[in-house]
Amino acid sequence: MNSQTPKKTIAIDMDGVIADVEPQLIKYYKQLYGITTTLSAIQGLTGAEAFPEDASTKNILRQPGFFRTLEVMPGAVAAVKKLMENYEVYIVSAATEFPLSLFEKIEWLQEHFPFISWRNIVMCGDKSIIHTDYLIDDHCKNLDFSRGKAIMFNAHHNLNQHQHLRVYNWDEILELFEKEGC
Amino acid sequence: MNSQTPKKTIAIDMDGVIADVEPQLIKYYKQLYGITTTLSAIQGLTGAEAFPEDASTKNILRQPGFFRTLEVMPGAVAAVKKLMENYEVYIVSAATEFPLSLFEKIEWLQEHFPFISWRNIVMCGDKSIIHTDYLIDDHCKNLDFSRGKAIMFNAHHNLNQHQHLRVYNWDEILELFEKEGC
Repeated sequence: MNSQTPKKTIAIDMDGVIADVEPQLIKYYKQLYGITTTLSAIQGLTGAEAFPEDASTKNILRQPGFFRTLEVMPGAVAAVKKLMENYEVYIVSAATEFPLSLFEKIEWLQEHFPFISWRNIVMCGDKSIIHTDYLIDDHCKNLDFSRGKAIMFNAHHNLNQHQHLRVYNWDEILELFEKEGC
Repeated sequence: MNSQTPKKTIAIDMDGVIADVEPQLIKYYKQLYGITTTLSAIQGLTGAEAFPEDASTKNILRQPGFFRTLEVMPGAVAAVKKLMENYEVYIVSAATEFPLSLFEKIEWLQEHFPFISWRNIVMCGDKSIIHTDYLIDDHCKNLDFSRGKAIMFNAHHNLNQHQHLRVYNWDEILELFEKEGC
């Protein structure tokens, strides 16, 4: 790449993309509501169908520690580092609905992705005013309005949505960007 | 306006635009360093020139309560409400450098601008991937890269920068948008 050419930009979502949120939801659902479910049981279900107790998902997401203790999605750290060699990478999380999550999310990034500058972190509500060349996200409510190329990270809640290019893991994302050729 | 036409978007900065940061900096500088300065004394000076103790500005911005107790810029509440009648307004604050500020900023917005949805709040680092039709900000580091029309809110540190349309208060902003005609 010509060093004079500005790098293309990638916006990467946190929950369900670099942070493995499904096992954590299942764990907290059991703790808070006493109900056991499994990864295979929730495939193809919406959030409300997967965790049907009234407002349970939002309640779970408001629990202190929920975001701070998420596991990293397998392969995400190495893949993001690799992408940063040729792209300007931004972490863009829809987080302002849960104000307590903001500090936890920053701390989580500092622990697991310390090579990402604060300059490249965005905590927002809707993502419609985010303009990057690529958006990697698991929610169609974000991908549908992407101004760049939309890449859908597989999740239980998006299995029945087919309007975007789907990837199942970070290896596939790296393969995809190798084909993009820059 | 035709109800079918999407509203144009405005990104509005917090510090120095809807939050009156200069008097607070002066107050904290006195408290922390014992040095008195005044609004008139800092006109035309950069942040480092206005508050020259080593790293004092960043130290001040890390003080708990600094952002939570800022005064609202005169006229900002009514003006933002007015703009929201015809525009989609986003509050876009470069805040991720100071992670403790994030929750304070959300709380401050909930107190003073409770009519702004969490969907329309963005806490970010650099603003180069924010794409709105207008950006109202006091820093050229943001305005210079604006993808929409840049409007510079007057501040002590930007008095000698002349590359953007300058406004001195919220009345002038409303006048400006009246002339924009939508």
